[in-house]
Amino acid sequence: MPYINLENSLPGIRSLVQYRPETGRHLYALVRVLLTGDSTLSKGERELIAAFVSSRNGCKFCTESHASAARILLQNHAEVVDEVLENGTSEKLDPKINSLLQIAAKVQVSGKEVTPDDIDEAKASGANDLEIHDAVLISAVFCMFNRYVDGLGTSLPEDPVAFEEMGHRMISNEYKFHSNPTT
Amino acid sequence: MPYINLENSLPGIRSLVQYRPETGRHLYALVRVLLTGDSTLSKGERELIAAFVSSRNGCKFCTESHASAARILLQNHAEVVDEVLENGTSEKLDPKINSLLQIAAKVQVSGKEVTPDDIDEAKASGANDLEIHDAVLISAVFCMFNRYVDGLGTSLPEDPVAFEEMGHRMISNEYKFHSNPTT
Repeated sequence: MPYINLENSLPGIRSLVQYRPETGRHLYALVRVLLTGDSTLSKGERELIAAFVSSRNGCKFCTESHASAARILLQNHAEVVDEVLENGTSEKLDPKINSLLQIAAKVQVSGKEVTPDDIDEAKASGANDLEIHDAVLISAVFCMFNRYVDGLGTSLPEDPVAFEEMGHRMISNEYKFHSNPTT
Repeated sequence: MPYINLENSLPGIRSLVQYRPETGRHLYALVRVLLTGDSTLSKGERELIAAFVSSRNGCKFCTESHASAARILLQNHAEVVDEVLENGTSEKLDPKINSLLQIAAKVQVSGKEVTPDDIDEAKASGANDLEIHDAVLISAVFCMFNRYVDGLGTSLPEDPVAFEEMGHRMISNEYKFHSNPTT
């Protein structure tokens, strides 16, 4: 039961966006650019960073929904999602992605944790400036979403299978904002 | 010196928004609604929450610029800004604002820190659902901005007087997005 009357029975972030569309439309527009816009990072890699940061923040709604999206998008090596949620890294991933996950993990604690050495390591493993920028911003953005979703005590779906459906919907809708979702 | 080549010499968040306007325009639109849109919380009270959360995150750029805006907007009791940055509360503030600052402080640590008791206390001191919502989201949003600004090692202005000018500009521009600012 959410801490305030959200006037709808949607779960997680969806209940908040419907309650306050004036802010919700910009939140969705932001995440749409970051997770689905043109990028040299694949959509699956970006969903993986989102799920990992959410996991470090202990936000079940965001972790499960973005992990589901990452598993679908990463297809043949969906098992790396569980490895990353567990260890923050996977030998099956490109070293570049592991170095970006390491930067995301630091940002989750504080922006001040990131050091020039972290950036040098990412560059040495092939990351360019824009990829480093986007990894930092994805981590920061999920530190926001996680606090927003948990800080207002939003609902979780009753059936865990709902997260799988959510992953599919997030991928097909690409976080398009709807002011009046039907479910 | 920023960790990546931002291709401009602007300080703090302004350098990031110019580097990546695709995300910057949505970040500014979001903060514009939250800090300057219609609300029963005054603009000064909202800038105070932003400065306070930024201070807890140790983000000098965001703390100083939003503290400057709060001091200008709160006019005759500008000294509460320093009290809140120091103690998280001030006897000179309405109890409602103190209870919202307490919720913002919990959200800064984690959304999961907020308890039903915190919400009850805010409601008992006169806060309505939308004010509680906005206090949580302002705190969460500045947890994002602070990580973004510090995680990429953005520059601080050389002259501290620049923060005062920034406060005035933020108030008069109301966070309007410019894709190509001149300074």
